[in-house]
Amino acid sequence: MWMRTTCNLEFQLAYPTPLILMLRARSGPRQWIARESYTLAPVLPVQEYTDIFGNLCQRLTAPAGEFYVRTSADVITRDSLEEAPGGGFVDIPDLPDNVLMYLLPSRYCESDRFGNMAREIVDGLPLGYDQVAQITHWLRESIRYAPGTSAFPLSAVEVNLQGEGVCRDLSHLGISLCRALSIPARLVVGYLHALEPMDMHAWFEAYVDNHWYTFDPTESTLRGGRLAVAYGRDAADVAIYTQFGPPATYSDMQVGVELLEVPPG
Amino acid sequence: MWMRTTCNLEFQLAYPTPLILMLRARSGPRQWIARESYTLAPVLPVQEYTDIFGNLCQRLTAPAGEFYVRTSADVITRDSLEEAPGGGFVDIPDLPDNVLMYLLPSRYCESDRFGNMAREIVDGLPLGYDQVAQITHWLRESIRYAPGTSAFPLSAVEVNLQGEGVCRDLSHLGISLCRALSIPARLVVGYLHALEPMDMHAWFEAYVDNHWYTFDPTESTLRGGRLAVAYGRDAADVAIYTQFGPPATYSDMQVGVELLEVPPG
Amino acid sequence: MWMRTTCNLEFQLAYPTPLILMLRARSGPRQWIARESYTLAPVLPVQEYTDIFGNLCQRLTAPAGEFYVRTSADVITRDSLEEAPGGGFVDIPDLPDNVLMYLLPSRYCESDRFGNMAREIVDGLPLGYDQVAQITHWLRESIRYAPGTSAFPLSAVEVNLQGEGVCRDLSHLGISLCRALSIPARLVVGYLHALEPMDMHAWFEAYVDNHWYTFDPTESTLRGGRLAVAYGRDAADVAIYTQFGPPATYSDMQVGVELLEVPPG
Amino acid sequence: MWMRTTCNLEFQLAYPTPLILMLRARSGPRQWIARESYTLAPVLPVQEYTDIFGNLCQRLTAPAGEFYVRTSADVITRDSLEEAPGGGFVDIPDLPDNVLMYLLPSRYCESDRFGNMAREIVDGLPLGYDQVAQITHWLRESIRYAPGTSAFPLSAVEVNLQGEGVCRDLSHLGISLCRALSIPARLVVGYLHALEPMDMHAWFEAYVDNHWYTFDPTESTLRGGRLAVAYGRDAADVAIYTQFGPPATYSDMQVGVELLEVPPG
Repeated sequence: MWMRTTCNLEFQLAYPTPLILMLRARSGPRQWIARESYTLAPVLPVQEYTDIFGNLCQRLTAPAGEFYVRTSADVITRDSLEEAPGGGFVDIPDLPDNVLMYLLPSRYCESDRFGNMAREIVDGLPLGYDQVAQITHWLRESIRYAPGTSAFPLSAVEVNLQGEGVCRDLSHLGISLCRALSIPARLVVGYLHALEPMDMHAWFEAYVDNHWYTFDPTESTLRGGRLAVAYGRDAADVAIYTQFGPPATYSDMQVGVELLEVPPG
Repeated sequence: MWMRTTCNLEFQLAYPTPLILMLRARSGPRQWIARESYTLAPVLPVQEYTDIFGNLCQRLTAPAGEFYVRTSADVITRDSLEEAPGGGFVDIPDLPDNVLMYLLPSRYCESDRFGNMAREIVDGLPLGYDQVAQITHWLRESIRYAPGTSAFPLSAVEVNLQGEGVCRDLSHLGISLCRALSIPARLVVGYLHALEPMDMHAWFEAYVDNHWYTFDPTESTLRGGRLAVAYGRDAADVAIYTQFGPPATYSDMQVGVELLEVPPG
Repeated sequence: MWMRTTCNLEFQLAYPTPLILMLRARSGPRQWIARESYTLAPVLPVQEYTDIFGNLCQRLTAPAGEFYVRTSADVITRDSLEEAPGGGFVDIPDLPDNVLMYLLPSRYCESDRFGNMAREIVDGLPLGYDQVAQITHWLRESIRYAPGTSAFPLSAVEVNLQGEGVCRDLSHLGISLCRALSIPARLVVGYLHALEPMDMHAWFEAYVDNHWYTFDPTESTLRGGRLAVAYGRDAADVAIYTQFGPPATYSDMQVGVELLEVPPG
Repeated sequence: MWMRTTCNLEFQLAYPTPLILMLRARSGPRQWIARESYTLAPVLPVQEYTDIFGNLCQRLTAPAGEFYVRTSADVITRDSLEEAPGGGFVDIPDLPDNVLMYLLPSRYCESDRFGNMAREIVDGLPLGYDQVAQITHWLRESIRYAPGTSAFPLSAVEVNLQGEGVCRDLSHLGISLCRALSIPARLVVGYLHALEPMDMHAWFEAYVDNHWYTFDPTESTLRGGRLAVAYGRDAADVAIYTQFGPPATYSDMQVGVELLEVPPG
């Protein structure tokens, strides 16, 4: 399916402010960027680099006053996503080297504290995909999805205590439970068609059956129509923007996803 | 300056044909991609990866029949380029690790065979930038720039014997002469505003005075208005497209560069 | 100075157990490995890979029963370490790309929760090296260094509440306070000559004045005689060994550091 | 099998001379370094870095006068090597991204000039392993292996004209013929037990049947007992040492490989 994503940021800043942005999606096996635009007002020098997870990051110093970032992409992506019921656990010795870091605990995913809870949730299930599916099911049943409620990321421990969270928070808990079972898991930030209310979205991927599979604890049925923008161990690695120095006087973000009838030509 | 580049490829193929393309420029310190489009007809699955030089490469299998690749970018780039007369030679121990490979001979740059000739050309000059400037000057005086004459790349040895070549060939000789003096040098493929006749262009960069500086043996005065698309040791690393299997029945490439009056918004 | 380090591990395992080890130091600007040995008993197939931080990691599956890893290195390292009082804060736009990740919060370094505390500790000091020196001083005054007390890593929040910790825990708090001031900081695990009691050691580095400088909150005067084995964002990234599956029946680690009178020849 | 390798270099230099060495083998799936030593006389500062092929490289500036490098490794390696008669050609779209560069022509492997010759040599054979085996057989029949005859590397074109060459030169031709058939191939430099006369050795690997397989055109039967030290596209990438500035007054290299009865403990 073809879709057009947009993400526009507006800042009002009292001081010149260094920013790191992650707003340029990369073409990959599941998504192809046919058109994109990325404009700044005022126009500024920008440096782009690739971080350790392969994300394209943009560095700049925004001036005092009003500052706008407007991005858009026309992409082809999948209508539906592969699922793999029964897909097997990958033994540690067989994991690719570059997947191993997704077994480790991270800022918002204290997987070292969730061993017992994870084993209870998946009790009796075959190792692998079905465990992750059960974790995702358990999240939907047990943790209230409350979009728009959280100003800053909650860690898995916090979201478990609080019993509710935004998409990112639910994924933090899902990722932690997977890693506690020695299943590699990572956070994805991106766009999802027809999300209500529309916003940037976050979900997670788990590595089973020798592939990264998508799981979304905010949905009862996994949907396609996704554009991944950034991957990381958790929200600490994949902020849409990171701002240094005093907070902005005002900031706003507008996100849009629409279907395209005709491929861009 | 703002400019819009386009590169459109057309193929007529007797068989399904694997292609590797290098047609997506990256934002960097000297150029910012504000908009780009990259479309295929028919629409096909594509994989994109980053090669060892940092270039974005697109892999696909083109179908039998007609196949089109259309790319375009709106970019901000420099009006003029830094020059550094007197800029010093960088001692080998002070070269950054990732620059060292640009000292080695490569397919079309047999720098190991040009020691004496390089020393003659730069005789008496201070080490560094001025040597490269003199090499570039010598190329303009001694090797005829004959755009459009070469079907496949000439190596430095060949272009030196033949006394003429296209932009890429001249750069191969320039790079070889630099490396023979222990000055790192690399090939750049990209766009140049107002090139006559318009086509993809190639030039080279040499590492002196702790920076990569641009040199273009096809120009008496170095101009800006460039968009770099790919970097490599020589033309073997940076083909706009590499095609596997039987040759295309027909192929064509249309390149354009125009100035934009107004930045894309 | 020349020194010989040894680290010997012993495991008694009920089941075949996947292990990831980080016990091979790399030669670098501050240390040169002139001899090393790394032996396993029983002898086993091992895979070695380089993680995202540049550490050499060894993967293997230890058999049920007794298993030994014995490592030793003869190295040349610095007698004393550079300090840089007055060394300046590096503005965010000037930080190298690969340093940026050390600004982010991580599993055991919740730097996003220490802004106010960090600003209080360094109140009135010039930005940069002196702030980190003051943080290190504050740690020595305020947090009791209690070697051998901790079975698993404490996060910065935990060590601050608890008021004591092992070397690694103190560094977690130091790192978090630095990052809260936008100073990149990372954990180092390695050997320290004449440490009492002898064990693997951990300290931290902060990036100021365009270099990584060493800080050790367990010492009143910074000493040399160090061999760095692994770098990371915190202890989650740099475990000497990570073990998967049921815990070992028994495990033990013996560490030694001795001076060499004569360089190995 | 356990073996001990040594490579000792001696230089007499008129001037301080920058050197880049590749003398530290890495542990990997086929070889494990249990002990190694790497000493310099006089002792000097050295920097070690990893090049784009994954080789560990040592940079230093050797002083005027006598300079020694002595390296040794105790390793476990394979007695015999896997062969895969009938192993299939890997279609270009299925090649891993990081293998693609080994399809390109390089300094000493002008694969773009060997298409017809390669197709003649392998005429009628199934695509893949058997083609490479036939190329290796053809090399043994057609090109005289003349150890010790060549001061500097010959390119594939040159060795084909000349009809003889050292191990490295034969491999250059073998690699070029493989790449001309779209089979990725790379040069390996290392040690071979019982080589006569003993010296550093070079052979090549080709990527078929989804693996890198070893081929050695200097042997009628492929033997094990190898320690790979460096990989690259050809000899330009993998010199045991590269020296800058005026040549050494004198240089010498002593190589040894012996079997170990007892593993080092």
